[in-house]
Amino acid sequence: MSLDADFALKPHERLAAFLESDMACVNSLIRERMASKHAPRIPEVTAHLIEAGGKRLRPMLTLAAARMLGYDGDNHLRLAATVEFIHTATLLHDDVVDESAQRRGRPTANLLWDNKSSVLVGDYLFARSFQLMTETGSLDVLRILSHAAATIAEGEVLQLTAAANLETTEDIYLQVVRGKTAALFAAACEVGGVIADAPQIEVTALHTYGDALGVAFQIADDLLDYGGDASATGKNIGDDFRERKLTLPVIKAIAKADDDERIFWKRTIEKGDQQDGDLDHALALIAKHETMAATREDALFWTAKAKEAMDILPEHPVKEMLSDLADYVVARIA
Amino acid sequence: MSLDADFALKPHERLAAFLESDMACVNSLIRERMASKHAPRIPEVTAHLIEAGGKRLRPMLTLAAARMLGYDGDNHLRLAATVEFIHTATLLHDDVVDESAQRRGRPTANLLWDNKSSVLVGDYLFARSFQLMTETGSLDVLRILSHAAATIAEGEVLQLTAAANLETTEDIYLQVVRGKTAALFAAACEVGGVIADAPQIEVTALHTYGDALGVAFQIADDLLDYGGDASATGKNIGDDFRERKLTLPVIKAIAKADDDERIFWKRTIEKGDQQDGDLDHALALIAKHETMAATREDALFWTAKAKEAMDILPEHPVKEMLSDLADYVVARIA
Repeated sequence: MSLDADFALKPHERLAAFLESDMACVNSLIRERMASKHAPRIPEVTAHLIEAGGKRLRPMLTLAAARMLGYDGDNHLRLAATVEFIHTATLLHDDVVDESAQRRGRPTANLLWDNKSSVLVGDYLFARSFQLMTETGSLDVLRILSHAAATIAEGEVLQLTAAANLETTEDIYLQVVRGKTAALFAAACEVGGVIADAPQIEVTALHTYGDALGVAFQIADDLLDYGGDASATGKNIGDDFRERKLTLPVIKAIAKADDDERIFWKRTIEKGDQQDGDLDHALALIAKHETMAATREDALFWTAKAKEAMDILPEHPVKEMLSDLADYVVARIA
Repeated sequence: MSLDADFALKPHERLAAFLESDMACVNSLIRERMASKHAPRIPEVTAHLIEAGGKRLRPMLTLAAARMLGYDGDNHLRLAATVEFIHTATLLHDDVVDESAQRRGRPTANLLWDNKSSVLVGDYLFARSFQLMTETGSLDVLRILSHAAATIAEGEVLQLTAAANLETTEDIYLQVVRGKTAALFAAACEVGGVIADAPQIEVTALHTYGDALGVAFQIADDLLDYGGDASATGKNIGDDFRERKLTLPVIKAIAKADDDERIFWKRTIEKGDQQDGDLDHALALIAKHETMAATREDALFWTAKAKEAMDILPEHPVKEMLSDLADYVVARIA
């Protein structure tokens, strides 16, 4: 690949190219471990999701962190597969919880099979992920990833109880996001450093990078829900509004709402009484209070935080790719 | 407590009395760890199930095994809480999968809250269980319990795909039971021995005991579904028939069915076309082929296997209680 072609690639594509042989091993490990001797339904459901061509961002973070810090064993492969299994398990359960019909441009597993299969196959992958991480023999890794798994579930439950609640603050939103998205990004980076036996200051920096990257990523995602391109995001404009999820553009608009506007939000979000034209009115209020711009500012703050955390990490080709990745996750909303 | 009163107690009650102070510690640990700083829904849902007064059979097996083999540290408490968390997580997910409305004589969590909460709180407890077992610092324990968790999910998925399928053999039934029930019984016993640093032959005996106890327990449970007392089991007669689950009394009856009977099973179980009087007819066919007695024989075979496995274990008051427990789980069907 020429240097020019290399520069034209997006950061995650450059990471994928750099980590190509590692990633091939991770993919075979995933295929090997998602098998089940007794229950063929398990690999069917898993393959539907795993082969759908997600970007494999989380396992790449683990591989990248380990490589950047000079690791040359093979436990980073197990950890990358672990991280992808945890991610896939949460997607299967999320689609049940959200009653989603589409994921990565394809019908969801709960639609193609049923909710039961999604719940149980998710449980299986979760258990398999713990088997994989146990094989690394690192109790630190187990501590970090089991803590992350608990934080993810906590964030999802918090999101559930915050839904349709107009009292949801930006702090609560941040806690939800840190749980449901940033916890796994942070742990994915951190365990790469731990397995490479990096000094604690570098491990902490990796955690901070992953956490901030995850928050920036999720804020950008939530922003696109009110102004993105369905073909690029795989989501339809206004999904969060229809599902009465409180995300930054709306939380900020509610904070600035006058009495009439508050009545509107109460009816549509709190009571869930939505009619034709309501989404357009919500978008108009978001525009009026300029909360898209304010949300974009927040995402950029987290991107800056992610990049800053990397300062203390050693020079390495991967370091620049990770830094560019932090810019890239918000470039979608530039 | 007098010796006479002691003899009048059931084996699990004698175990509970012997392990009373350990169990009190386990109960506080459970309450401490089911808490969530950010999401109060989590302890609400968990408490509903955990405080409903299950027998705590699985954590008692862990405590009993550790004590019997002379353990005097405190990691058996963490492991007992771990086992109860895994069990509670699977119950929460099972009730979603089975669309159950009652558990332990109370409305299920999915009915009181919603399926979403049951899925996510189950995930949280599962993650918390891995945190707890990581705290013991024993990689052997992590290997055994993560393997058990995978086997449980595999058994549940197999049960899902075997439901309504008349081709389900006794072998497949046994695989389902070994997964959904026996795997956790076996692991609960085994980790008690591992944490006590018992010789491998004793650890293996504990695993065999737990596995056989679990199989006997589940066969008895499934038998009671066609002939038990709803007030004793908390289940209604014929639940498995209505849910088209193939258990031994029916699998054995189908194996002996003539052409007319096969047409009946095809309609009611395979097609799910059930009418008034069908359950009575199913019970008549089960009586005609005497499959209740044959199922009872199978349960007794596993009880004998459980008791035999214990032969090599050292003499200890707990040993007799565990042996009596194996008799007790089938005494319900005597």
